[in-house]
Amino acid sequence: MEYTDKAIGIDFGGTSIKMGIVLGKQIVAELPSINPKHHPEPKDLIRAIADQVKVAREDHDDIRAIGCGVPGFVHTPTGTIHNLTNVPGWTDIPLQALLSEATGLPCVVENDANAMGIAEWKLGAGQHFKHLICLTLGTGVGGAVIVNNQIIRGAHYVAGELGQTSIHYAGRLGAYNNAGALEDYIGNNEFAADSQAAYKEAGIEKDIEDCTPAAMDALASHGDEIAIACWDDFAKKLACAIANCCWILNPEAIVIGGGISKAGDTLFVPLRKHVLEQLSGPFKDHLKILPAKFGNEAGIIGCATLALESIED
Amino acid sequence: MEYTDKAIGIDFGGTSIKMGIVLGKQIVAELPSINPKHHPEPKDLIRAIADQVKVAREDHDDIRAIGCGVPGFVHTPTGTIHNLTNVPGWTDIPLQALLSEATGLPCVVENDANAMGIAEWKLGAGQHFKHLICLTLGTGVGGAVIVNNQIIRGAHYVAGELGQTSIHYAGRLGAYNNAGALEDYIGNNEFAADSQAAYKEAGIEKDIEDCTPAAMDALASHGDEIAIACWDDFAKKLACAIANCCWILNPEAIVIGGGISKAGDTLFVPLRKHVLEQLSGPFKDHLKILPAKFGNEAGIIGCATLALESIED
Repeated sequence: MEYTDKAIGIDFGGTSIKMGIVLGKQIVAELPSINPKHHPEPKDLIRAIADQVKVAREDHDDIRAIGCGVPGFVHTPTGTIHNLTNVPGWTDIPLQALLSEATGLPCVVENDANAMGIAEWKLGAGQHFKHLICLTLGTGVGGAVIVNNQIIRGAHYVAGELGQTSIHYAGRLGAYNNAGALEDYIGNNEFAADSQAAYKEAGIEKDIEDCTPAAMDALASHGDEIAIACWDDFAKKLACAIANCCWILNPEAIVIGGGISKAGDTLFVPLRKHVLEQLSGPFKDHLKILPAKFGNEAGIIGCATLALESIED
Repeated sequence: MEYTDKAIGIDFGGTSIKMGIVLGKQIVAELPSINPKHHPEPKDLIRAIADQVKVAREDHDDIRAIGCGVPGFVHTPTGTIHNLTNVPGWTDIPLQALLSEATGLPCVVENDANAMGIAEWKLGAGQHFKHLICLTLGTGVGGAVIVNNQIIRGAHYVAGELGQTSIHYAGRLGAYNNAGALEDYIGNNEFAADSQAAYKEAGIEKDIEDCTPAAMDALASHGDEIAIACWDDFAKKLACAIANCCWILNPEAIVIGGGISKAGDTLFVPLRKHVLEQLSGPFKDHLKILPAKFGNEAGIIGCATLALESIED
């Protein structure tokens, strides 16, 4: 496959909006990031984005489209944002139309976890799979579901919220007062707090900063038994949600990205064990559980890919 | 829609093989059922089925195809049975080819829960929905998943095993040594045992025969508070698995069949409450939770429908 056209991918985060010019699988140029808090009004923020697009096109006259991934619910056929998590004021905003008008370029708007999933599926660790689940592990847990070579959006375009699936019908109450949401067990902050509690139970006082996923990875890699047990517990909980996706959809592969996936074998060895323990033959015999290929740039690359595909249709 | 062709639908159960001639949404004639235990060899059982088909065609010369629903895993493209639950000796049997050869009619073979789901989706309570989950509640719990107007089979044609999805990552161990499988909480026998235990805890000794779903429905309908609490608990556990499907797939509707669904409001009132409590706006605002239209005949009708569609393709 040859890549000739470029697109701008935008990763719209609550504290930073990252932008890059994408050609094929690569970000060939990063644009300065924008702090959304400096532009509390959507129209001002869209203006700031459009200004950067204009500057970028002076150096790159082959930018054909813009893709924007946002942390929230999107009506994807029109690119209208229902609302964003942790970004106040972004309710019922027709971002696709406004951004297209402000830049003169075709735009698409997509949920950020779907954007990351699309990057992995089209260009990354999930390439060549027709039935694929992508998970992004961080402060929250996001997901993207690919079935029969299509990303699944569902009746109201909000499918793939794997972080809200329950691993305990009477468990912790989550963001929507729902019981046992995966995110409330394996989100970065919850993992740190549970790890801190595990040390405390063993009579060891640790600051929460010493219980981050990175710190716990280092401890486990050096043979710390409490840390190893904490990762096993993490893997068991994540495996429950993954196995549920497998019973329901019988995918070929699971791709796992986001910060915690950097723990490598510390995570993937117990995770594979627990997932396979939960499944029967045809659900597990050929199942692949893979780390994501792209890191922080997955959102930008996924959106740009989607934007270019939309103008090819 | 006008129905002109007939098909034979076969519902292959572990204790009884039921057969019917189907025209449109109706079984227009039932054939004598066959006890599989009388024919332990697959080839003898296939011969017994073929004999009945032959007799049936003497009265109905417009039978065009045969559909067979089986309790186990099927390689649907070829109609080969991997293995059946509770029916020994049926491993790696190319039932579609053998039945077609024995009868001279085109055949399809499908998982029984998928067959029931197809009946509800094409002709029953799930008609006109493009995104639909069907559940069959009985001794076990079966499922069928429809996304974008397609039944989802997955990488190895075994998708839709909703009864094995976990509602507790550290819960009861199930058929595949998997933790917290829905079926191990809300299967008929488990519901009866849990209900008996609830009465015992309140100081009331009950025989297990007085704790069947039908008995518990009668008790709850008469205001028995323990029975009402047992149904609420049942609904909460089922709601967990349903909500998980909703977060993952964002369906328009859930259709619930099988024996327990006959409990009507006793089940559906607490079930709707618990499912809606677990979901956020776009996942629940338009969600329908409906009783199945077809009863025991769903499997026969679903298979026959599938068989007729296969010859139209």
